[in-house]
Amino acid sequence: MPEIKSIDELKIPEPTLRRLPWYLAYAKLMMEKGETYLSSTQIANNIAVDVSIVAKDLSYVQISGRTRVGYATAELINVLERFLGFTESHKAFMFGVGNLGGALMHDNGLEQFGLKIVAGFDVKYELAGTSINRIPIHHIEKFPELQRQTGVIIGILTVPVDKAQEVSELMIQGGIRAIWNFTPFRIRVPENVVVQNTSIYAHLAVMFNRLNAIINK
Amino acid sequence: MPEIKSIDELKIPEPTLRRLPWYLAYAKLMMEKGETYLSSTQIANNIAVDVSIVAKDLSYVQISGRTRVGYATAELINVLERFLGFTESHKAFMFGVGNLGGALMHDNGLEQFGLKIVAGFDVKYELAGTSINRIPIHHIEKFPELQRQTGVIIGILTVPVDKAQEVSELMIQGGIRAIWNFTPFRIRVPENVVVQNTSIYAHLAVMFNRLNAIINK
Repeated sequence: MPEIKSIDELKIPEPTLRRLPWYLAYAKLMMEKGETYLSSTQIANNIAVDVSIVAKDLSYVQISGRTRVGYATAELINVLERFLGFTESHKAFMFGVGNLGGALMHDNGLEQFGLKIVAGFDVKYELAGTSINRIPIHHIEKFPELQRQTGVIIGILTVPVDKAQEVSELMIQGGIRAIWNFTPFRIRVPENVVVQNTSIYAHLAVMFNRLNAIINK
Repeated sequence: MPEIKSIDELKIPEPTLRRLPWYLAYAKLMMEKGETYLSSTQIANNIAVDVSIVAKDLSYVQISGRTRVGYATAELINVLERFLGFTESHKAFMFGVGNLGGALMHDNGLEQFGLKIVAGFDVKYELAGTSINRIPIHHIEKFPELQRQTGVIIGILTVPVDKAQEVSELMIQGGIRAIWNFTPFRIRVPENVVVQNTSIYAHLAVMFNRLNAIINK
């Protein structure tokens, strides 16, 4: 019988959590190709991660492989999707319906990964009452009331940099417990609030720099 | 006279490149608040990064602070924007005009950070001839010809996971030198091609996991 893990054991290292979706993507690809079993070595070789890392990462999820054949592909996919939270539907509010906020509201792909944006908020009165991709947009004043009605605790932050700290405080005050921060601003939050920074523009800077280096060689 | 740095010296650590946009964001915020000078300590305290790291990171860019007062805010902004490549306009092609690809084509914010998507490519014939946010969409067959005409060397990859490797090979064959990979698939590329992975869905997994931990406490 598998041991029940305690909350502390559930504290999986962030690098592991970021790699698990790679294994999931690869397993889905192999599933389509009709591969019923996958070994750690096969996964490792195909996505250029050390095999010991793959094995260690997979030890965090409740799956056991069979000697010589490896993991059953279908089971690996199921277990990873559940483990990563992609099979649940987590409701979220969008804060800031500008370029990036509006763009993310267009991305139905998020739903396949367990995130459903149910409303957007903005300071612009002219946006209130409109919608993007059938997701309603409200004035930010409406947020506390809608939060109480819906119990949504995930907020996506895409406001301008100079409003990032202020809006995140307002989000937390209104009941948000996890902030997906797309601004390049490093927001400060209390310890019991989760922040996930996704600075897509910072990634651009890395790409430009690396590209310059190879072009100038 | 400032020393001219060699290409090897230009190889800035990735963590530094990812932090520099935070300093830029903070400097812009302080500029709006009328602060004409910024010290490393002030930056460090406000974005929760160690002051020695801030100083080391800023040593990579060509700027010198003044004792006691620090960096001139306007100069810091200019130097960082230029250094990060945000003031240039880098043209890019979008590969895969699905949910995420289409969403990113809606994000005019990318242009402020130096990236201009000039065309999208997809395998779907019904998308060819249409446009998103005034960016034309072509059938993928047109890519090699358009690459020769335009010289675009940056490609954004947002195709389905099972097409990621195949399309990236086609991109490279057609002249792409830097791939901004938004798929959760770990593409393999030759050494002289830059890959920047931005797995926004992997960040979601981290957020869900951390949120569960605090909720179940």
